[in-house]
Amino acid sequence: MTTFAVIMAGGSGTRFWPLSRKARPKQLLPLGPSPESLLAETVRRIAPLVPPERVLIATSEALADAIARALPNVPRENILGEPVGRNTAPCVGWAAAHAARRDPNATILVLPSDHHIGDEPRFLAALERAVAAAASGDLVTVGIEPTRPETGYGYLEKAEVLTDGVHRCARFVEKPDRARAEEFLATGKFLWNSGMFFFRADAILGAIRSTLPALADALDRYDAAAREGTEAELVRATYGGLPNVSIDNGVMEKAGRIAVVPASFGWSDLGSYQTAWELAPKDDAQNAVPEGTVLVDAKGNYARSTSGKRIALVGVEGLVVIETDDAILVIPRDRDQDVKKVVEALAARGEGERL
Amino acid sequence: MTTFAVIMAGGSGTRFWPLSRKARPKQLLPLGPSPESLLAETVRRIAPLVPPERVLIATSEALADAIARALPNVPRENILGEPVGRNTAPCVGWAAAHAARRDPNATILVLPSDHHIGDEPRFLAALERAVAAAASGDLVTVGIEPTRPETGYGYLEKAEVLTDGVHRCARFVEKPDRARAEEFLATGKFLWNSGMFFFRADAILGAIRSTLPALADALDRYDAAAREGTEAELVRATYGGLPNVSIDNGVMEKAGRIAVVPASFGWSDLGSYQTAWELAPKDDAQNAVPEGTVLVDAKGNYARSTSGKRIALVGVEGLVVIETDDAILVIPRDRDQDVKKVVEALAARGEGERL
Repeated sequence: MTTFAVIMAGGSGTRFWPLSRKARPKQLLPLGPSPESLLAETVRRIAPLVPPERVLIATSEALADAIARALPNVPRENILGEPVGRNTAPCVGWAAAHAARRDPNATILVLPSDHHIGDEPRFLAALERAVAAAASGDLVTVGIEPTRPETGYGYLEKAEVLTDGVHRCARFVEKPDRARAEEFLATGKFLWNSGMFFFRADAILGAIRSTLPALADALDRYDAAAREGTEAELVRATYGGLPNVSIDNGVMEKAGRIAVVPASFGWSDLGSYQTAWELAPKDDAQNAVPEGTVLVDAKGNYARSTSGKRIALVGVEGLVVIETDDAILVIPRDRDQDVKKVVEALAARGEGERL
Repeated sequence: MTTFAVIMAGGSGTRFWPLSRKARPKQLLPLGPSPESLLAETVRRIAPLVPPERVLIATSEALADAIARALPNVPRENILGEPVGRNTAPCVGWAAAHAARRDPNATILVLPSDHHIGDEPRFLAALERAVAAAASGDLVTVGIEPTRPETGYGYLEKAEVLTDGVHRCARFVEKPDRARAEEFLATGKFLWNSGMFFFRADAILGAIRSTLPALADALDRYDAAAREGTEAELVRATYGGLPNVSIDNGVMEKAGRIAVVPASFGWSDLGSYQTAWELAPKDDAQNAVPEGTVLVDAKGNYARSTSGKRIALVGVEGLVVIETDDAILVIPRDRDQDVKKVVEALAARGEGERL
């Protein structure tokens, strides 16, 4: 049995404009505390379990070259560029087919590319447990022990114990409102959906065949085309017609038994400037700013200049200040969900070069 | 009789950092509503009374070349570069000596280079009246009718009428505290000191001889050296020893009768970002920002990017946001007096290249 990682790296991350752009999405940016991009961190982090030559990257065709440059250790043919985005079932299926061609007994780890992991040894231990659980043919996920009634994440409901540290997963739950999130936390039975999935290639491909037969047929044709050397053309011609559903709700939940490994390893969805600020090293006044920034009565700010300009913040609190080679953003940290309004305004004006 | 203007252009304007720098002080920046620099505006504005060939610029030696480039119509020899700053008595005296060499009957208009004038016809009318009043040998100033109890300006106390529209000036008053400023406004007898002075060259040189004989002697030696072609060397060797006093308190007030022309012409000391915002064209939400700025719930902001970057302001109010080729400043408009703290911090760190 060999392990393959499928890293999901198709997102655009408009909530990190102007740092993130269509051509330089958030997974290619060093948004965590380290100077590595989130994607490079993900590849490095799983190297003890999966070497780079067995890391597959699921992304868009438009980003494939940029990702290849960002990951020199990952072979170019491992980067699967979707011609159009079709949710996660098609790209996980396509990646599973790739892995199965190289090893029919492959086990696959599906991992997001844009998360922060605070405790890597515990992260790896949880992944080892999940990989072991997948050996039985179960579809496995990792659920994060919640620490607050978060409304920004999906949840997993944990049921009876299957084996040591592994539970049956009763269901996937969409992002709840505040009241339900508080209930979830109180029951002790709910976990945050980490978006990480673990299965044998044959198990997930079997599940796809039973739940999305049209996708299974398409994957068979991709396999046949791959043997002829014409897969790329066939994908480009047919990918847009694949079912636009997710791997968790659309396949795993419908297919049968799902297992969940509860875990805690300082996990965080790096989804906004607020989170980036929370994770960043800060000074005594809670500012996360470049070295050398001039601060006068400034508290709780997050600032970045991609060109290394000297930033001066005077008498401001809780602001996000971002400067890139063609744009400047100033927004209160607690309004960071409105960054996308700027992106929408620029799109409406036709300023495509700034998106 | 010919008129000469002496434009005082030696200041550095740290309150406009990072737009203003030692090598690019505020008078060389377009800080008013027009795209001209404040200095170029000053020269253009007085052209109906004084042609550029009779405009003398009093500045520092370090700025002389930059000023010559900014004022191509002003002859290079009209730019008087002080080797060290010595307050206004030495530079006004030196400029008066220059003017007197060219025309012993010259009348001199001393004008600041960093003010905004809203109503140029009324400004010119006031200057004509002041020039006419100076013909008698009086030392004349223009006082601005105050519109609020401003504590940021010096004041002039107006006494009896001398001729139509011209009063005797009882005294110069330093910047008052709030209570005194309110008294001043209530009496109707106080005017803002515009820093504009008008006198015959022989009158001011005579006043200098009676109040600052050491300066008068030095100016005699400069005249003699000028006839030999060695003035520049003598100035460089001796200027630092000249008395460090102002022309208004140090000479005019002590010398004898001062006249004042009360006037109103939309005058404003362009001393800070707050004033620049007040004078700038604004949108309905009181933002003074570059065309194309993305504004979402943003009110009363002042923003500039010298490189023309797209600025986006979301959910912020009353901020100053400035970006230049090497620095970014964010500060509330009502704390703009603290910009100098940033300059002080950079100086203390030895970041001279950013000052």
